[in-house]
Amino acid sequence: MDPHWYAIVMAGGAGTRFWPASRRLRPKQLLPLGPRADESLIHSTVRRLRQRLAADHILIATGAHLVDATRAELPELPAGNFLAEPVPRNTAPCIAWANAVIRRRDPQAVVAVLSADHVALDEPAFQAAIEHAMNVAAAGIVTTLGIVPTRPETGYGYIEVGADRPDGACDVVRFVEKPDASTARSMVASGRFLWNAGFFFFRSAVMADAVDRHLPALGRGVRELDRAAAAGSEQDALARLFPSFDAVSIDVGVMEKLAPLAVVRASFGWSDVGSWQTAWELAPHDAQENASPDGAILVDSRRNIVANWSSSPASGKVIALVGVEDLVVVETDDALLVMPRARSQEVRKVVEELQRRHQSERL
Amino acid sequence: MDPHWYAIVMAGGAGTRFWPASRRLRPKQLLPLGPRADESLIHSTVRRLRQRLAADHILIATGAHLVDATRAELPELPAGNFLAEPVPRNTAPCIAWANAVIRRRDPQAVVAVLSADHVALDEPAFQAAIEHAMNVAAAGIVTTLGIVPTRPETGYGYIEVGADRPDGACDVVRFVEKPDASTARSMVASGRFLWNAGFFFFRSAVMADAVDRHLPALGRGVRELDRAAAAGSEQDALARLFPSFDAVSIDVGVMEKLAPLAVVRASFGWSDVGSWQTAWELAPHDAQENASPDGAILVDSRRNIVANWSSSPASGKVIALVGVEDLVVVETDDALLVMPRARSQEVRKVVEELQRRHQSERL
Repeated sequence: MDPHWYAIVMAGGAGTRFWPASRRLRPKQLLPLGPRADESLIHSTVRRLRQRLAADHILIATGAHLVDATRAELPELPAGNFLAEPVPRNTAPCIAWANAVIRRRDPQAVVAVLSADHVALDEPAFQAAIEHAMNVAAAGIVTTLGIVPTRPETGYGYIEVGADRPDGACDVVRFVEKPDASTARSMVASGRFLWNAGFFFFRSAVMADAVDRHLPALGRGVRELDRAAAAGSEQDALARLFPSFDAVSIDVGVMEKLAPLAVVRASFGWSDVGSWQTAWELAPHDAQENASPDGAILVDSRRNIVANWSSSPASGKVIALVGVEDLVVVETDDALLVMPRARSQEVRKVVEELQRRHQSERL
Repeated sequence: MDPHWYAIVMAGGAGTRFWPASRRLRPKQLLPLGPRADESLIHSTVRRLRQRLAADHILIATGAHLVDATRAELPELPAGNFLAEPVPRNTAPCIAWANAVIRRRDPQAVVAVLSADHVALDEPAFQAAIEHAMNVAAAGIVTTLGIVPTRPETGYGYIEVGADRPDGACDVVRFVEKPDASTARSMVASGRFLWNAGFFFFRSAVMADAVDRHLPALGRGVRELDRAAAAGSEQDALARLFPSFDAVSIDVGVMEKLAPLAVVRASFGWSDVGSWQTAWELAPHDAQENASPDGAILVDSRRNIVANWSSSPASGKVIALVGVEDLVVVETDDALLVMPRARSQEVRKVVEELQRRHQSERL
C-alpha cells in the first residue's frame, strides 16, 4: 500500500431507478445489485479499494440524509471519512471539497475518484487498472479510465483516445457526450473510443490548481473551508458556503478543460448497474435464467428477476411465478412493482406518479 | 315470504383456486370475488336468499374449521344455523343432515340447496328462478336449476332436458359429467343441454325418503342424529357418526337415481367463479380493462387483475404495474403470485409445491 494513495467514493443518488428497492434514503449503492447477493455495491467498491488503500485513506462523499445508512454499510471506515454534502451541487464542488480534506491530511496525496455504485466483475483486472492509473497520476498528469466498450451503448459518455504515452496510458483527445445509436456504432467500430466510467486519478495539489484555474469561485470557497477547518468550524462554513457553489460536474467544469490528460485503457467487466435489466444480467441465474431469492416458487417461468425486500414475516414472503417470462418483480414492505425487463427504464413513470400523488413516504 | 321455505348454503371448499387470497381458513366464498368489491360471495348469496327467506330459515353447512370465519361474514344469521361438518364427506351426508335439522323445525319445509360461492349477475332473474323452482318442488318433485349455457364449457356438468311439464319446468332426461370440447360443442348446439349449477329444491320429507331409499346407511345415521338431537347430544353423535358416512355427492348418491326429476331453465348471469380468469371477467374494469384496487399505479398496462390482500400498512401497499398485459397479480401479507390470466388453473402447481415443502402455514 502506497502511503500517499487515497480514494474519494462518490455515493449520492436519488434512488429512483431501482424503485421500490431503492429509495431516497436507500439509493442504489446501498443495495446488493451486483454479482454478490450478500454485498451492497458500495461495500464491494470499498472492499476492492482496500486491496490497495488503508481504510482511513478512503473517503465517502454522500448526502447529509444518507450518512447514517452509508456508515452502517461501512463500519470499518472512520467516522471522519464520511463527507456529508449539505445540499447536492453535482460533482465538482463535492470532489473539490473532498480533495481539500485529503490534502490537509497529506499534501503529497494521490487521489482516485470512483462512483460507489459500479460493478467490476474481473477484480484482478480492476486492481491492475487502478494501480496503473494511480502511477500515471502520481507523475502529475490527471488521468481517467477508459473502459473498452462491449456494445454500442447510448447510455454512456465516451472518451476519444489519442497517441500512446511512454507511461503506458494514452492521451485523451476529447470527451464525447452520450451519442445516438448510429454514432455509438461507428465510434465503437473505430476502436478509438472508450466508455467514460467516471473514474479520475490525480495528485491532490494538481486537482486543487485545476479547480482554482477553471472554477475560481469554487477554488476560493474551498480555501475558505480550509481556513474554517483550521479554526475548528468547518461544518458551519460548509453549511454556509456549499449551497452557494455552482452545481457543475467535474467533467464539464474541469476535466474537459485540461490538457494534457491521460486515459488508461481497461477491461474488467465494468457496469454502472443502470437498471433492473442490468441487475438481471449481473445476478446469479438458475437453469431457466431466472434471478430469484431463495424460497421463491417458479413454475415454467424464464428469464425473470425477482427481488424480495419485504422484511416482516420471519421466514420470508413466498413469491410465486407461474408461466411468466422476462419480468421484473420487486417486493418491499410497502410496494410491489411488476414490469417487463425490457421496460426497466420506465420505472421512473411510477416514481413520477408517486410524486404527483404526494406519496413521498414511498420514494 | 313463504313460512315453509328454507335454504341450505353449501360453504366448504379447500381454498386453493384463488391462492394466495384464498386459504384453507379463507376459501373462495369468503372473498369478494364477484361484481361487488365490498361483498364476499357467501354474503351476496345470503343477501339474495333473504329477499325470499327469513334469516333463521337459512342454514350454512361448512367445515368445523371454517365456522368462525363464516359466522363473522354472516352476523345476521342465528348461531344455531351454522352446521359444522366434523370432517368433509362430500355433499350427500351434509345435505342429508342439514335437511334433517330443517325437518325437525318444520316437517312441511321446502328446501333450496345452493353453493355459497356462485355469482348471479341478474338478481331479478335469479329471484324468479328460485321462486319457480321452489313452487315446483313444493308440489313434491325434486327439482334442479339448469343454466342456459353461454359457451361450450368443459368445466361443468350438464343436464339433458326432456318434455315440458305443466308446472313450467321440464323433465330431466339425464345428468352428463364434464364433457370433452367437441361433446360440449354439440351439446350446446343442440339446445337440449343446460349447465348443472348444483342448485336443488325439494320438500324436506321427499329428500329424507330419497336418502333412505338410495343411501340407506346414511338414512339410518341421520335418524340416529335426530334421536340424539332430541336427547340433547347431537354434537357427540355427530362427531361419532359423521366420519363413518360414505363420502358421496348428492348428485351421484341420490339425484341421478331419482325419476321423475324436474329442471327449471334459468338465465341469470350465473358463474361458479372458478378461477382468477373468471374473477377478472366479473370484476369492475377500468378503461384499459384492468381490475385493480384503489391506489394501484398502472402504467400502459391492460387486462390485468390485481388483488391486494396485504393488511399491514395503514394506507395500503402500493402495487405498480408497468407495461404488462393479461396478468394475475395477487398480494397478501405472506405471499405474492404473478401469472398470466390464461394460466389461472395452474395456481394448483404452486399449492402443490407448498405442500411438498410442508409450508402449510401458507395454504
